[in-house]
Amino acid sequence: MATLKDVARETELTVSTVSRVLNNRGYISEETRNKVYAAMKKLNYQPNELARSLSKRTTNTVGVIVPHLDHPYFSKLISNLETAAYEYHYKLLLFNSKDKDEKETEYLEMCKSNRVAGIILCSGTVGTEKFEEINVPLITIERNLEHGTASVECDNKQGGRMAAAHLAECGCRNVIDMSGLKDMSMPADQRAEGFAEVCKKKGIQNTEIKIDSKLYATLDYREYIEQVLLDHPQTDGIFASSDVIAAQVIQVCAKRGIEIPKQLKLIGFDDVNIASLTTPSITTIKQPIKEMAHIAMSLIASANKNQMVPSRTTLPVTLVKRETT
Amino acid sequence: MATLKDVARETELTVSTVSRVLNNRGYISEETRNKVYAAMKKLNYQPNELARSLSKRTTNTVGVIVPHLDHPYFSKLISNLETAAYEYHYKLLLFNSKDKDEKETEYLEMCKSNRVAGIILCSGTVGTEKFEEINVPLITIERNLEHGTASVECDNKQGGRMAAAHLAECGCRNVIDMSGLKDMSMPADQRAEGFAEVCKKKGIQNTEIKIDSKLYATLDYREYIEQVLLDHPQTDGIFASSDVIAAQVIQVCAKRGIEIPKQLKLIGFDDVNIASLTTPSITTIKQPIKEMAHIAMSLIASANKNQMVPSRTTLPVTLVKRETT
Repeated sequence: MATLKDVARETELTVSTVSRVLNNRGYISEETRNKVYAAMKKLNYQPNELARSLSKRTTNTVGVIVPHLDHPYFSKLISNLETAAYEYHYKLLLFNSKDKDEKETEYLEMCKSNRVAGIILCSGTVGTEKFEEINVPLITIERNLEHGTASVECDNKQGGRMAAAHLAECGCRNVIDMSGLKDMSMPADQRAEGFAEVCKKKGIQNTEIKIDSKLYATLDYREYIEQVLLDHPQTDGIFASSDVIAAQVIQVCAKRGIEIPKQLKLIGFDDVNIASLTTPSITTIKQPIKEMAHIAMSLIASANKNQMVPSRTTLPVTLVKRETT
Repeated sequence: MATLKDVARETELTVSTVSRVLNNRGYISEETRNKVYAAMKKLNYQPNELARSLSKRTTNTVGVIVPHLDHPYFSKLISNLETAAYEYHYKLLLFNSKDKDEKETEYLEMCKSNRVAGIILCSGTVGTEKFEEINVPLITIERNLEHGTASVECDNKQGGRMAAAHLAECGCRNVIDMSGLKDMSMPADQRAEGFAEVCKKKGIQNTEIKIDSKLYATLDYREYIEQVLLDHPQTDGIFASSDVIAAQVIQVCAKRGIEIPKQLKLIGFDDVNIASLTTPSITTIKQPIKEMAHIAMSLIASANKNQMVPSRTTLPVTLVKRETT
């Protein structure tokens, strides 16, 4: 199949001139335009970029790749990304990688072949090497990625500090930190650092327990939590890495007759809908998901205007007190 | 700007022949093809459909319009639609109408101008007259719409029957049905019919209370539930129209010292993630969301092949017993 280069060779024009014709960008003489169209016809060239030039809206599309769709964090994130996209006149193409390498690769190809204006890659577990050759703005949210254009994160370390300080205030002396995943490096890992730092300062006994990343796929942590509570019967405070995990801590404690917040204080992370729907409702560290989504979208807009974008943007978190502390 | 008709007139071909050239469909002689390309060039015709022909994937896109994104029902639905889309080689363009007329209209325009392969419209409240002129397959999920191609629903009436039968089995004598919305007509309204039918048969006192549709926008039903319980202190069973409402019934009961399931049995609808994350976890009527999503996508595929599609598809529901009954 003929390429842009073939059209350029045939017309004796540069690739960028041909591209400008296809995209209706800048001044192009009628003669040049006709020459390009004639060559396209002759070579049966099928430009993928044509759609963009023909209907400006067509590739005002941002690909969003998430590892879960039926998870309150990603629901809230997607909801806010959709709102932000609307403001920037972008549309959202949505992909669920299900933490599978091959799906993520395929979706990246789809994004490329559809000439998206940018890609937003949300925290996931698959390899990063595929992103090296992406030539569109690639924004990561809560994910470590060497080859991305820019990352957007919440201040995870500060979140960990705030959680520990709050548990200390509530009188906890033996706490468990369930804030990290085994075998995965995520910005969220810094929560444990901040949490440990404050526990040490306050003289609180802190046990850090990593969660098997396999559980992240099923979102069922109950057995794991039950074992942790059996192994650590003196626990009077838990810092969970998500409100989904915190909800399951409530369930396990109810089953084992541990009263929350009387006997055990619990603090989650994210502040998604589930946090206010459990009984008791969950005290949590709120990620500013709305603002993170907005910034991610603005970074794509800026990158597309060839403006410099910050390689990392970290937004503050806040403590939302509810009934589990 | 030149239109397809202008190209047809210039070439003395029919519009459908020109369209076939643009879409690379069917047999077209080289002569005809060249004639069309020449006319396109002469008239500076900018076909919106070109993208489809040039890169088959480009408009293998299905627009999904939902009234909420940060709601567990729509999260689960979107998650399953994404999975189904993948199987049919479709991509999802996601739009959140937020139950606003003007946004829904704008999104429909976007879908049209992007030449989507189909639109899936999920339960919402806005007017239906805009859908009259849509010339792509329009599938509704849990929504009444005169002008759609086809609707996909769960068996709401049977769900209501099952809920009443289960509460009766659990010994309830004074139940409240919170399964409908005021001022809105939805397939879900039939839940109340089925519920009332069985209550009557079993001789159970049934009070049907419609929910103000304004609450649906905020998803905060607590005050409303509290008032209902104050007004009906003898209540020993509640049928809630969603697991989100059921979760809030648990919260209000906890606050008022009503023990679930001991003093009051509770049954939700949907079976979304929240149903298994509350304490106690929620007995519910499960919508076969996975199958509904799959069928919706298959209907778009069939409609695009000009196959006849059923105008209404109703799928069975099941009772999922958990801890609230």
